[in-house]
Amino acid sequence: MAGSSTARITPVILSGGAGTRLWPLSRGDRPKQLLGLTADETMLRLTARRVADPELYNAPTVVAAAAQADEVEAEVEGMGRLILEPCARNTAPAIALAALQAAGDELLLVLPSDHAIADVGGFNEAVRTAASFAADGWIVTFGMQPDRPETGYGDIRRGAALAPGVYAAERFVEKPDLVTASRYLAEGGYDWNGGIFLMRADTLIEGLGTHAPGILAAARQAVEAQKTEGLQIKPAENEFAASPAASIDYALMERADRVAVVPGSVGWSDIGGWSALHKLAAKDKDDNVVAGKVFTIDASGSLIRSEGPLIAAIGVKDLVIVATADAVLVAPLSEAQRVKEIVDRLKAEGGTEWT
Amino acid sequence: MAGSSTARITPVILSGGAGTRLWPLSRGDRPKQLLGLTADETMLRLTARRVADPELYNAPTVVAAAAQADEVEAEVEGMGRLILEPCARNTAPAIALAALQAAGDELLLVLPSDHAIADVGGFNEAVRTAASFAADGWIVTFGMQPDRPETGYGDIRRGAALAPGVYAAERFVEKPDLVTASRYLAEGGYDWNGGIFLMRADTLIEGLGTHAPGILAAARQAVEAQKTEGLQIKPAENEFAASPAASIDYALMERADRVAVVPGSVGWSDIGGWSALHKLAAKDKDDNVVAGKVFTIDASGSLIRSEGPLIAAIGVKDLVIVATADAVLVAPLSEAQRVKEIVDRLKAEGGTEWT
Repeated sequence: MAGSSTARITPVILSGGAGTRLWPLSRGDRPKQLLGLTADETMLRLTARRVADPELYNAPTVVAAAAQADEVEAEVEGMGRLILEPCARNTAPAIALAALQAAGDELLLVLPSDHAIADVGGFNEAVRTAASFAADGWIVTFGMQPDRPETGYGDIRRGAALAPGVYAAERFVEKPDLVTASRYLAEGGYDWNGGIFLMRADTLIEGLGTHAPGILAAARQAVEAQKTEGLQIKPAENEFAASPAASIDYALMERADRVAVVPGSVGWSDIGGWSALHKLAAKDKDDNVVAGKVFTIDASGSLIRSEGPLIAAIGVKDLVIVATADAVLVAPLSEAQRVKEIVDRLKAEGGTEWT
Repeated sequence: MAGSSTARITPVILSGGAGTRLWPLSRGDRPKQLLGLTADETMLRLTARRVADPELYNAPTVVAAAAQADEVEAEVEGMGRLILEPCARNTAPAIALAALQAAGDELLLVLPSDHAIADVGGFNEAVRTAASFAADGWIVTFGMQPDRPETGYGDIRRGAALAPGVYAAERFVEKPDLVTASRYLAEGGYDWNGGIFLMRADTLIEGLGTHAPGILAAARQAVEAQKTEGLQIKPAENEFAASPAASIDYALMERADRVAVVPGSVGWSDIGGWSALHKLAAKDKDDNVVAGKVFTIDASGSLIRSEGPLIAAIGVKDLVIVATADAVLVAPLSEAQRVKEIVDRLKAEGGTEWT
């Protein structure tokens, strides 16, 4: 299949959203993609670099929160367009904004900006595999092969084989509990939904017209009234704000007819929390991931990172310790996902200075 | 014995020394006695308040590091004299400076400024018991009754009974290992050496003249050339610097002839580290000691304290977590005494900004 598509592909990098799962590093105004987590470079920069091969890709379109316009523009070299969401309406309206700027037959590769992919060559090979199906009107998702039962990701169930390495997507399933995730892994035929997909711009627009007409209408009105300034495209705020908020999975993927999945084992992770980052990052001989001003004595299995005060850790085991100038998190890595509870409590108690 | 001494007692509060065992809260320029640990008030203020009964005590003399003169003066109400050590020479020279300002028959109660005593009434009762022996030329130490084997304190072995509640001090023993400490506890007759003692000024001076003449001579020369400014007495630097550095235990107590011990159970602790503070301080229902901007979820048995960034602790157990604006310590409470290794490493690597 590779090479059967003539048109190049336009990456659409989604840089909206504010994460809480990597608090205190990630904040409302400092989302995960603007952090250097697996490397010194930001996740956003690494994402853009992954889809920079000019033989395969056009200059990327980035959809970002208006508040982060300049920071995002500085992070992505050779950007084609920077579309600024006037407010957050989840992924479906954001992607609609991008599709409405594109040519109808332009292939769009929609990518979250805060995921890690270890095997870029493998990923681009999967994109090539997907391209002819996308050109033919399919929405092609990329299934990430699971290596463990995982309750943090949704899954895609493979259906009939359409071609070597391409399957019909039989259904999308919500994040499973541990028993279900273990069963999926044992049964096989389930891949993690990495939130990456490839399709023609007009396939997306027609799909939204059928399954989410309110979203499409609002996005279209916002685009018709948009202003442009350099690379920056500013859709109209009131029109966009009128859109229902919905994820692309919910608004389209789970409802559309011709959805395919290309499974691959490309070392993908959404870095959904401190524990995921610890698994992913380079470790010292005692299984620690250490960054910043950190002194350790007999620490093991821990993620210890400072962007503020010096951290001295003695005899700690399997902990996350993360410090910024104004906040410190300490928790067992196995409980680090509960950081959301801290952020919720801080917000509830008016502690917006820390969120 | 109570009331058999006619002269009142002058407390001599020792506020020299820089601790590392409560790093990162205690620093070279911020010793333990200037911290509020068991309460909002500093240890120094609490120490002075403990010996403020005018029926028993004169206005206190404080011996402090010159660098902390103003801070120390502000902490002690009704101070009689503030003697400023021009440099650190350990406790024997510091006490000599105080004794040389006093009348010969003045009773001096020498007290560290960074210890906790829960039962102040009991302590003052022990001081009354000691007073007539001190007036009679004895050096009277106060033995703290042990309730556990403890490797962090030196001990005093009781000898013959001299009067009800007063014993000859048979010998001073160094900090024991755990086996020895357990044996002491089982055998009985050993009390912890709290570093508190009562004697006449001339008893001390004569004792130093016999057992540590170099210290006495240097202190005497420093006092002869001292300057006075308000409450502050400034012994001459060069003369004082010429003194050997030695603890009063080593220079005098272990060598002198007429040394007595008054044992008592007065809730004493030297707060020798984070673990000791956790034992001592008020705890919440989950056995946590919490101070400052701290959020916890399912924390237990921990000491969590911030004077800087917000600390969020999730699922932690038996840890010390202490944050200042520039440093964070995380360790199991059982290993918290190893903070000294951190301070040593920081110093060795030139990190004086953190020590």
